[in-house]
Amino acid sequence: MPKTEPSPRPATQKAALSSKKVQSEKVRGAGIREVAKQAGVSIATVSRALSNEGVVSPQTRQRVVEWAAALDYKPSPLGRNLVRGRSDLVGLIVPNVAFPLYGEIIRAIGDVLGRHGMSILLASSHDDEAAERGAAQHLLRHALDGGIVINSRLGALLPLQRHSGWIHVAPEVSGLPHRVELDNEAGGALAAHELLASQRRRLAYVGAEGRESAERERGFARVVAGAGLTYRRFGGDYSEVSGLRAGEALLGGAVGGGSGWTSSAGSTPAGTFPGDTFPDGIFAAGDLMAAGVLRSLHRRGLRVPQQVAVIGFDDAVIASLLYPRLTSIRQPAYPMGVAAANLALRLLEGQSGGPLTFMPELVRRESTGPPE
Amino acid sequence: MPKTEPSPRPATQKAALSSKKVQSEKVRGAGIREVAKQAGVSIATVSRALSNEGVVSPQTRQRVVEWAAALDYKPSPLGRNLVRGRSDLVGLIVPNVAFPLYGEIIRAIGDVLGRHGMSILLASSHDDEAAERGAAQHLLRHALDGGIVINSRLGALLPLQRHSGWIHVAPEVSGLPHRVELDNEAGGALAAHELLASQRRRLAYVGAEGRESAERERGFARVVAGAGLTYRRFGGDYSEVSGLRAGEALLGGAVGGGSGWTSSAGSTPAGTFPGDTFPDGIFAAGDLMAAGVLRSLHRRGLRVPQQVAVIGFDDAVIASLLYPRLTSIRQPAYPMGVAAANLALRLLEGQSGGPLTFMPELVRRESTGPPE
Repeated sequence: MPKTEPSPRPATQKAALSSKKVQSEKVRGAGIREVAKQAGVSIATVSRALSNEGVVSPQTRQRVVEWAAALDYKPSPLGRNLVRGRSDLVGLIVPNVAFPLYGEIIRAIGDVLGRHGMSILLASSHDDEAAERGAAQHLLRHALDGGIVINSRLGALLPLQRHSGWIHVAPEVSGLPHRVELDNEAGGALAAHELLASQRRRLAYVGAEGRESAERERGFARVVAGAGLTYRRFGGDYSEVSGLRAGEALLGGAVGGGSGWTSSAGSTPAGTFPGDTFPDGIFAAGDLMAAGVLRSLHRRGLRVPQQVAVIGFDDAVIASLLYPRLTSIRQPAYPMGVAAANLALRLLEGQSGGPLTFMPELVRRESTGPPE
Repeated sequence: MPKTEPSPRPATQKAALSSKKVQSEKVRGAGIREVAKQAGVSIATVSRALSNEGVVSPQTRQRVVEWAAALDYKPSPLGRNLVRGRSDLVGLIVPNVAFPLYGEIIRAIGDVLGRHGMSILLASSHDDEAAERGAAQHLLRHALDGGIVINSRLGALLPLQRHSGWIHVAPEVSGLPHRVELDNEAGGALAAHELLASQRRRLAYVGAEGRESAERERGFARVVAGAGLTYRRFGGDYSEVSGLRAGEALLGGAVGGGSGWTSSAGSTPAGTFPGDTFPDGIFAAGDLMAAGVLRSLHRRGLRVPQQVAVIGFDDAVIASLLYPRLTSIRQPAYPMGVAAANLALRLLEGQSGGPLTFMPELVRRESTGPPE
């Protein structure tokens, strides 16, 4: 209950007040003093009453709300958040916003956070360690309630004081505490099974640097070895042009650029089918590289899937736009984004996090199937 | 200069202080009192000194910084922004983050704002008027320094108190004061010129609802009419499947779904080439619809561009991934995003805005060219 005698209810004064319009909202919150004075409460009580946070009696809250309305006072968001101790902001660091798969994840995170009245504060890491560190510092200038980083290249981000950690979606570094990941090895195994089911025996893998490709290849190699086969391998960088080059190399043509892989120790031998024969089943560790492989086949006049089956990874939007429509291993990007956002909310509420692993799924389209 | 005698320099006390660690940062800024007391200045002076805003003598600033370091005090971003009266946040409302063209615009906006120490607060309008209004209300709960909205469906957004207006990128509504637009009509004209230069005479337009398609068609129709020709037209919704359906309809096959256009009054007549002849030049008002048109041609076994030339619009990432690589009218998405961000910065500084119109550009690839 208020300690001082409050002024009469504002309704009777409304006409008089509106003719002498109260100064509109200022960031420093000049108007809050007037509301506090008229309602006979402290400034802190006005803040609590209007933000619906903290203990205020219903009568006091009602009086404050009425006076705030009469005086045309709107609380400053900055001031309100200062009182609540929450910013309702979740930082999000993405390598490249324009990459379709990330767009899906961002959309999911935005949908979940939006339902909780929270917003995304976005920064780009440009797939670069220094830029990622800069993006994190940039975001931390704001009071974040949490943070999510996609494909992080940093083992640990900057020390955070208000919450226990960031959520990592598919980090390059392993073993981080709060992470949402895909079972890449299972995805590679799915791809191998699909090519074997399509009756292919001359197999090839088009991969790239980094943890994800290594895991996809491990699953692929395991299933291929289980069938008593080996495979050829060629390395790209997830771009279409690198897939085109890999395709040309695998088809035995002239290889420009020379971005060929050096096989790491212990990797699979060079393949059991003759060097002058092209593969009849190619698994690319990314849809863009698969697009390049398809183009190399079109250029040779090889029919897909009759002569060569092709399978990609990610199932990004482009997979179904390619010709023929690309069979791909789907990353459930939207559900993974939902999981990351929910994990951020859990940490914010002081609950524990822990790793979440999603299973990839085969999406069969036109680029695999029985040979002619 | 300080009015009270400050405490001795903190360096000598550092060891003692660190053993009795000061309570770490709290949002309410408990630590700032201690810094002010030790440095012999007011809390406001500490704030000004640490935020580099406002007038503080170099000596006082130095003393505050040293005491803040010794006491392990880090200013609360919320409190700092409250003092500065700026949030360094720019709201951004996008129909769909996952659409590649928008990704490019977002990336550009983030790059420009990042260089000015500002961040993007992201919300999605889901291409829907009610959702867009909700997104705006959501963002306005934060103290924004500015706002940008892409493809807005609302004529005017919510009343904003702290800045004069939002920047609109390619709004559906015309005549908004601060806008960044493409000259869509010029883009349509470019497409027509390219098809005519490719020696095509049996032309078709695949469009969609809304202002942008209407403008693109106007430019296309003008050039076609200038060459003494007419064209057939069919409507989609910017999706690939609608382009596929349009392609099948234009090729004279069975049309499923029946999403055909009703020609508006005054539109171009049905075309001068016989009804049983397929068009040899098709302009689609979006790359995804062009992808569908290409697929309909592949299904009929028609060769592109030898038998039918196809041209898209936007030059999104997918354009160069299609088979054959799609000739398209490029929207300079990145430069448009840069312009929108710069316009937001100008408005924030109290300068005037005004509309900016960008010229589209023809990007010639494999889907146009001379017939066989």
